[in-house]
Amino acid sequence: MQLDPSGEGIAIDETRRLIASNKVEGTPVFNRAGEQLGTVYNFMVDKITGQVAYAVMSFGGFLGLGESYHPLPWRALTYDTRLGGYVVDIDKDRLADSPRHTAGEDPFVDDEYGAKVDAYYRTTPTS
Amino acid sequence: MQLDPSGEGIAIDETRRLIASNKVEGTPVFNRAGEQLGTVYNFMVDKITGQVAYAVMSFGGFLGLGESYHPLPWRALTYDTRLGGYVVDIDKDRLADSPRHTAGEDPFVDDEYGAKVDAYYRTTPTS
Repeated sequence: MQLDPSGEGIAIDETRRLIASNKVEGTPVFNRAGEQLGTVYNFMVDKITGQVAYAVMSFGGFLGLGESYHPLPWRALTYDTRLGGYVVDIDKDRLADSPRHTAGEDPFVDDEYGAKVDAYYRTTPTS
Repeated sequence: MQLDPSGEGIAIDETRRLIASNKVEGTPVFNRAGEQLGTVYNFMVDKITGQVAYAVMSFGGFLGLGESYHPLPWRALTYDTRLGGYVVDIDKDRLADSPRHTAGEDPFVDDEYGAKVDAYYRTTPTS
């Protein structure tokens, strides 16, 4: 495995399993056709079990403004090492209508929000 | 559950289970005597399984300089809702000698580093 020649120590080998929680931002998210839908903004992690429950995807927006945040249940995602990102089985129209929030909102403070997301993607909760 | 009156949407109810991956920094880490050892810098997350493998704790330093980063195996941690942070069963001397790195280093690029950490804390790997 090689270190990034810039010396910042960023691994460029995609077979590396571990990712730092403060580096997940920007991981691409694709649909099954391989089209990029957006990028990961952050993970919502269960602080008791240490299991990621949702990957919050940033979608839309222009020049850093107006993007919306769409949580994706972890169980709806598959990491694709070839693509170097996550694949979710959803089309763009259905994604646009999914539960979402904007910067500055903190909807997970309401336990019902996760349940809404799970119901929309028809997955059972991770925890 | 109340929102932070500042309107930034930060939940102040400690029974909330989910934490955003970009907000884990600063979570306190205590020993069994309830003494604070340091704070979490980030989590190392298995990108395939979504399970946190290590919480990297920031320890030592002064005025933001010289701190070292000590990965703690997830299995060695217990979240304590009363303390509002993680408890690890280790004393300060043993912690000071544990596998560690400094800012700018990326030792997890080497698969052996995680194994060293697990061996030091005598835990079996999470994955």
